Amino acid sequence: MRATTIHAPRDIRFTEVPDPTIEKPTDAIVRVVAGCICGSDLWPYRGENAITPGSTIGHEAVGVVEETGSDVSGFAPGDFVIIPFCHSDNTCPHCRAGFTSVCTNQGWTESGQAELVRVTQADGSLVKTDGMPDSSLIPSLLTLSDVMATGWHAAVASRVRPGGTAVVIGDGAVGLCGVIAAKELGAERVVAMSRHEPRQRLATEFGATDVVAERDDAGVEAVMELTGGIGADAVLECVGTDQSMKTAFRVARPGATVGFVGAPHGVELPVRQMFVRNVGLAGGMAPVRAYLPDLLERVLDGRIDPGKVFDLTLPLDQVAEGYRAMDERRAIKVLLQP
Amino acid sequence: MRATTIHAPRDIRFTEVPDPTIEKPTDAIVRVVAGCICGSDLWPYRGENAITPGSTIGHEAVGVVEETGSDVSGFAPGDFVIIPFCHSDNTCPHCRAGFTSVCTNQGWTESGQAELVRVTQADGSLVKTDGMPDSSLIPSLLTLSDVMATGWHAAVASRVRPGGTAVVIGDGAVGLCGVIAAKELGAERVVAMSRHEPRQRLATEFGATDVVAERDDAGVEAVMELTGGIGADAVLECVGTDQSMKTAFRVARPGATVGFVGAPHGVELPVRQMFVRNVGLAGGMAPVRAYLPDLLERVLDGRIDPGKVFDLTLPLDQVAEGYRAMDERRAIKVLLQP
Repeated sequence: MRATTIHAPRDIRFTEVPDPTIEKPTDAIVRVVAGCICGSDLWPYRGENAITPGSTIGHEAVGVVEETGSDVSGFAPGDFVIIPFCHSDNTCPHCRAGFTSVCTNQGWTESGQAELVRVTQADGSLVKTDGMPDSSLIPSLLTLSDVMATGWHAAVASRVRPGGTAVVIGDGAVGLCGVIAAKELGAERVVAMSRHEPRQRLATEFGATDVVAERDDAGVEAVMELTGGIGADAVLECVGTDQSMKTAFRVARPGATVGFVGAPHGVELPVRQMFVRNVGLAGGMAPVRAYLPDLLERVLDGRIDPGKVFDLTLPLDQVAEGYRAMDERRAIKVLLQP
Repeated sequence: MRATTIHAPRDIRFTEVPDPTIEKPTDAIVRVVAGCICGSDLWPYRGENAITPGSTIGHEAVGVVEETGSDVSGFAPGDFVIIPFCHSDNTCPHCRAGFTSVCTNQGWTESGQAELVRVTQADGSLVKTDGMPDSSLIPSLLTLSDVMATGWHAAVASRVRPGGTAVVIGDGAVGLCGVIAAKELGAERVVAMSRHEPRQRLATEFGATDVVAERDDAGVEAVMELTGGIGADAVLECVGTDQSMKTAFRVARPGATVGFVGAPHGVELPVRQMFVRNVGLAGGMAPVRAYLPDLLERVLDGRIDPGKVFDLTLPLDQVAEGYRAMDERRAIKVLLQP
């Protein structure tokens, strides 16, 4: 099949690789209908994560089941499915407690920017739609494989409550989906911290009531002013850098929780400040599968339209241009069509 | 008055100092009926915290109101009161949200091991009993000024739930009170990590269902075995060292929360592990005042008897011996009688 591979920082290629095959009877092979580029793909792209030269990249995809292993009973060729980036059996104690991303039979989507994906623990991992969805729904369904579920996790982990104030740090696609999530979970005030005008617009469209363009001291001051000096009831940290994390703890009111979903890079948690101010931290890798049924219903009902985070659609063979566009912040998120 | 002062590491004296006086109309002066030594007093005693030579020490006390400022309306001379170690107006937004330890008018008990204490924000801080309590109740009431409320905070912050498993790290008085709290909040299984036989016994008396004497790798292994390889639903971290914090994160199941109440000393939080395993951290300085009415009721009803943590009672003028006994772990907690 043809797939996206990474060879070195900024060296993204679209090449021929061996087709994935059924390796275990619990596997399924899915033909990708739409894939996309994740903010976290930019870490290796920018040389900030280790790279195995020639390895496939991409972990967000929706598609149609092509083949199933002999133990897969819930899915059949032809089913349209959403593939959580993290696979899970959905039966282990961690899955049953809602933490499918820490499944004892954990697996990963390893070729989301390709023609085919192998899904491990297919019965536990996949969620199908009732028939082939309308093409207009594909972008939103695609966000459920990671980014919308990850923004949702930030909101759940930070304990967004009806009537409260939520601050969303990060205006990437996850942060923007975090705005949707905070709104859906009933936050009365949703403050988006964003410096980029098109992202500010989308945040507002998604339900942000306030936008803070400043960062660091000035950004903290602005949030404090908006909240009458009290701070936010919930903070969604959707970046993963030390700077954004420090801002998160500073804008949280005492007793609040910072919900973090950006893989931490160089983060040193301010444990003394957390202790003195009673600000907690929760979150981590999003248990996508656990949120999927609920989020799917919200998309199909038209309550949420997270697909709007895609502001650039490219044929899959132009994936390298997609990475450039996201790296240079010319695009919020790039949808890829095989 | 006569008060305990600290002059250098291991140099505790009982000396004459000026009486505290009403400095603000919201102050009250309380004559101490019983005070005690806190595990956190051992930090400066052992030279691990900075010392202002000659300063008074001690922050846990109960007593009788001696004098009130002109703005104090809820208390009068003769009232028996519990003094939270952290004073609060109980009306600011943080207090109203339950986080009295982060009050915008925060104050501190500065002479709990003395004859008199000044209480700032007396109306907000103090809680009185209905008349003079029976002397048998004094030890338990005294624990409500800090240690029992702090153990309670660890249990609340770690989200102990009915039917779940709670692991308590630390067998000091706070950890032992954490066992009481986990039990009261409905944990079905309470695992006390303790190496000291008298403390193990008290933990069991307080409701611990299991005791793990091992530490580090062996301790983690033991908890994992007890929980069928899953880990604990809630972890109460009642020490504050890097070692105990690391153990806490390792014994927590994915999705669990570590509730921490020991002032962190040299702690580096394992942010990557927290992310990958979705284990959160919450807690901090206990909002004693917020918990007091509920805890007072539990003591008066005889539901809990945290006063049992005092295994040595000394006249106040022998306070230096009390510090030695706690430092050498000859005593769990020392009650001091002026």
